[in-house]
Amino acid sequence: MKRYLDTIRIDDAVSRVLDYVAMIEEEECIPSHKSIGRITTRAVYAHKSSPPFMCSAMDGYAVSFEITLDADINRPVTISKEHAFYVNTGDPLPPGTNAVIMIEDVEESGSSITIRHPVHLWQHVRMIGEDIIETDMLIPKNHKIRPYDMGVIISSGIQEVFVRRRPRMLIIPTGKELIDIFEPDYDKSKEQKLIDFNSYTLQRLGEDIGFEVEKFKILCDKNELKDIINNLVDKFDVIIINAGTSSGTEDFTVEVIRDLGHVVFHGVSMMPGKPTLFGVIKGKPVFGIPGYPVSAVLSFRTFFTPIYEKMCGIRIFDETIHVRLPYKIPSKIGTEEIIRVSILEKNSINYAVPLPRGASIFSSMVKADGLIKVPENIEGYDEDETVECTLLVEKGRLRNRINLIGSHDLILDVIRDMIKTRYNRLDFISTHTGSLSGIIAFKKGIVDLCTTHILDEEKRIYNIPIIKRHLEGIPCVLIHLVKRTQGIIVKKGNPKKINSIEDLARRDVRFINRQFGSGTRILFDMILRDRGIKKTEINGYDREESSHTAVGIMVKESVADAGIGIYSAAKIFNLDFIPIAQEDYDLLVAGDFYNTDRFNLIVDIINSDEFKKRIQEMGGYDTEETGGIKYRA
Amino acid sequence: MKRYLDTIRIDDAVSRVLDYVAMIEEEECIPSHKSIGRITTRAVYAHKSSPPFMCSAMDGYAVSFEITLDADINRPVTISKEHAFYVNTGDPLPPGTNAVIMIEDVEESGSSITIRHPVHLWQHVRMIGEDIIETDMLIPKNHKIRPYDMGVIISSGIQEVFVRRRPRMLIIPTGKELIDIFEPDYDKSKEQKLIDFNSYTLQRLGEDIGFEVEKFKILCDKNELKDIINNLVDKFDVIIINAGTSSGTEDFTVEVIRDLGHVVFHGVSMMPGKPTLFGVIKGKPVFGIPGYPVSAVLSFRTFFTPIYEKMCGIRIFDETIHVRLPYKIPSKIGTEEIIRVSILEKNSINYAVPLPRGASIFSSMVKADGLIKVPENIEGYDEDETVECTLLVEKGRLRNRINLIGSHDLILDVIRDMIKTRYNRLDFISTHTGSLSGIIAFKKGIVDLCTTHILDEEKRIYNIPIIKRHLEGIPCVLIHLVKRTQGIIVKKGNPKKINSIEDLARRDVRFINRQFGSGTRILFDMILRDRGIKKTEINGYDREESSHTAVGIMVKESVADAGIGIYSAAKIFNLDFIPIAQEDYDLLVAGDFYNTDRFNLIVDIINSDEFKKRIQEMGGYDTEETGGIKYRA
Repeated sequence: MKRYLDTIRIDDAVSRVLDYVAMIEEEECIPSHKSIGRITTRAVYAHKSSPPFMCSAMDGYAVSFEITLDADINRPVTISKEHAFYVNTGDPLPPGTNAVIMIEDVEESGSSITIRHPVHLWQHVRMIGEDIIETDMLIPKNHKIRPYDMGVIISSGIQEVFVRRRPRMLIIPTGKELIDIFEPDYDKSKEQKLIDFNSYTLQRLGEDIGFEVEKFKILCDKNELKDIINNLVDKFDVIIINAGTSSGTEDFTVEVIRDLGHVVFHGVSMMPGKPTLFGVIKGKPVFGIPGYPVSAVLSFRTFFTPIYEKMCGIRIFDETIHVRLPYKIPSKIGTEEIIRVSILEKNSINYAVPLPRGASIFSSMVKADGLIKVPENIEGYDEDETVECTLLVEKGRLRNRINLIGSHDLILDVIRDMIKTRYNRLDFISTHTGSLSGIIAFKKGIVDLCTTHILDEEKRIYNIPIIKRHLEGIPCVLIHLVKRTQGIIVKKGNPKKINSIEDLARRDVRFINRQFGSGTRILFDMILRDRGIKKTEINGYDREESSHTAVGIMVKESVADAGIGIYSAAKIFNLDFIPIAQEDYDLLVAGDFYNTDRFNLIVDIINSDEFKKRIQEMGGYDTEETGGIKYRA
Repeated sequence: MKRYLDTIRIDDAVSRVLDYVAMIEEEECIPSHKSIGRITTRAVYAHKSSPPFMCSAMDGYAVSFEITLDADINRPVTISKEHAFYVNTGDPLPPGTNAVIMIEDVEESGSSITIRHPVHLWQHVRMIGEDIIETDMLIPKNHKIRPYDMGVIISSGIQEVFVRRRPRMLIIPTGKELIDIFEPDYDKSKEQKLIDFNSYTLQRLGEDIGFEVEKFKILCDKNELKDIINNLVDKFDVIIINAGTSSGTEDFTVEVIRDLGHVVFHGVSMMPGKPTLFGVIKGKPVFGIPGYPVSAVLSFRTFFTPIYEKMCGIRIFDETIHVRLPYKIPSKIGTEEIIRVSILEKNSINYAVPLPRGASIFSSMVKADGLIKVPENIEGYDEDETVECTLLVEKGRLRNRINLIGSHDLILDVIRDMIKTRYNRLDFISTHTGSLSGIIAFKKGIVDLCTTHILDEEKRIYNIPIIKRHLEGIPCVLIHLVKRTQGIIVKKGNPKKINSIEDLARRDVRFINRQFGSGTRILFDMILRDRGIKKTEINGYDREESSHTAVGIMVKESVADAGIGIYSAAKIFNLDFIPIAQEDYDLLVAGDFYNTDRFNLIVDIINSDEFKKRIQEMGGYDTEETGGIKYRA
């Protein structure tokens, strides 16, 4: 069995794919009022001028201007209605007329009008062809029709336009491990399967680009897959098989392509997305797109935009911006890495903070504001470098956010929900790095807000000592958010009878820890020292999770017997909880953000009865002193 | 009759409209795989973790890691298949296992496997909740669902989501002067009517924002309009009547709103778009949108983005950039003016060149790359000011263009068509200002290319003398494009028997001239001087058109008896032509553009047989010396 794929460079891969992609030559003649988003195959020339005749630009009387020339404020001219014709805006000029007198400038009587000012030739007349002249090239070929384009096409009397047939894509999800939750016979309680969401996501991404996409049902059998492709390949312009593209025993996609056609490459030096497979069957490009969801969408983005461009004769432009990197981004030489980033806008600088890089962490595609590419020939980027970033959200959205970094708590979701309810023009983005990393980011000046709960070992005071130590000379205000109860999270019914920190050192207890730098880890380490328990005595001390809920789920699913965390994380999973300490979970506010309208919105929320009620319902919180100023520098 | 509208400021108008707009409270429960573009009414929390169980991250054997600990390269460990279970990527871990050995690291025999390396706890295992933890807030409320959002929602087992009902818009085109070219009984030859394209354009713009839009047939009768609105107002969230909003006799929209409800404002201090009318009928917002097409779309943009935002609880972001103004833009105090601009990107600076401002020139919405607002409290912008511009095209598109300014000729359409055929990654944009304005723009350094045909009166040489005079010290190359025949364009059959320039001075001949600064005007003035004909002798000397085809259509439509222009413009309209002179129509190339790949594409085209053949078919061109270098500085 082959162990590693021979990868080729992304650029080479794209250009080898494009060798097998042809422009679609078939055109369709469609009604022009239904042509938005379609691509012209011929330049569109105006059938008619617009306006198609001399017409009135005003409501009034059409006349020959010569007969008005003697009119004067003191010597009005009266014109018989045999020579002055009432017209509305848009009406064609009657024969023999060449000017319009505004209705406001006319004194009317039964059979004549009187005027006190002369008019000049073509006054208040829209000239024929003023907007469009018949034979004008309105729209070039290979142009995607927008609403304004469509308007102009209709305005010049064109009922039908020639457009390129849409390219057709077939997506076939494969794998015995998959289940489709939209199948009518889907049963939640059934055997353990992974939900297929790749095929739905790729379908919508393909439709967004402009493909006509058909999604097949999940196939598990190699021969069935071969038959289906054999039968359908003529109907489609490109086929995607997802997945089965690496080199395991059930990764039969490469064999299918080899049996029916030939493989062009297998493996691309990109990350995520390396096991991308490409071949040709009966002249049609066929992809094996990897199964890990982030690999799947990034591989798709890499290849299918250029494919569409070549098939359709147009260019698609991604929006890009320059971002500054507040942290070093290491990356492997020899692989082009695509890094998902959050973008924090602060004082008109966009800071890009890397999100988890795992190919299976699809939720990071939702959190990502942009993608950064690290070329294969460098070992990553240094701190403070400025690099190009492809945006996944509108640029304006970055400016209309309140950014928080720091310690995780479920109450941050409540704040976001209340902001999205009350002020739909703003969003609230919280990035969970733990307290210490949050304070370091805060020091770099990249965020407005930071949540922290770090106990000083000597002084036994929360947050203030560490802020004084790390943020000397940096203007900031510390606001008390909540007191919350930390404790040991154990299974419902506490089967292992864990009642104290000491019990965590028992050989039969598997513990799950929090990550280094989190306030909870700092608290836990301090308690261990206080009680004289060695880290090595704790079975699972090295196993880290990065949020309270992650600890909760590990206990719930029996991966661990106990973890340390907040009460609300135990309650949400219906777990038992042994209280250990009450701590201050506080909000650190940047000095330049403190007096802004946006911060006042946050203050309004955390002081509201609704907020206090919602978090009290979550359990384990004390809001007695919420909103109080604890420290100011 | 009221003569002027009492206008209110745009900001005031928008906020008064929003007073009558409510957020849509009705929600719909829809399948999550069909939720793209819809807006959440509730935060979406994960039903299931993803992955929902511990599963293999590789193809291989699942084992308990403890039994592998003694394995060594020299002392392999053999494990019975009762304790090692084959798993594919994505398969759940069998009970009692907690690590996966990659298939590549296994020596298999019938009933056992042999390994030479130990594995650690959870090696090659995707942990439950690695991506998403059940109860995680996946998507906040008031969020527009993108493909990645949908993917995450499906991945956590959610089959249905709650979204806001789409806001419903009714558009009613009105006016006796209008005709719908998509009506089955439309007859091209019918009486002279204006084509209704506003209602189609507004419909598609509304759909682009996110409205569900119904377009009614054209109504001409006030009472019918009243009945329709009365019957339908309950079904829609907002109604647009187009047009009848100014103060003419047939502008009954205001009366209809007043009869059925009340008018909130009539007239907004914006240009175009001033006669915008707004009222309320049975609690529903009702607009009278002006009839001039540019007024209609700009009024629509101004009001309907904020309306949608308020109805749906989201924010829409336009892409904006900063542009430099190479020309002064005067504007009236007291009116906020929206200026359509072309954007010319040169050396990373985006120059905004104003397009025609007329409210009826809808083709400029197709040409426009962006919109600039001139606030009501200033008299316009000065030359070289940098201002904000809302983009109507993707920013990347601006960088992938070859920009030409200068004299108009039909062969520029041929060049564009050939570029769009051969190189779909590029576009070719030509702005027609006439030769002299083109050279002045060229001097400002805002374009790559300029077309010109200016004859020097003394030297009787084309282009070179004027370039030497105006462009001293500016590196440039002058390339010969074509020789073309200028002459008098007259009606088919030449009914007025016009055979010479002298005939243009006859009293019975109505002439149509070209604009000041155009090469054709310069040539014409020179011929008049040569022949001793005074400008005042020419009937119509002051009537200007700005292109050869505009002159052609005026002659064809009998607005004038004669004009001066090129042969191809006569031929395209099947008009007669009296040759007067042959001239050099040349291409001036910026020094820094001359040696670029992009310019080489242009050279390839103008030297191609296809190009020469196509323009020879148009008639009146001589390509003998096409492509030759005439001058270099």
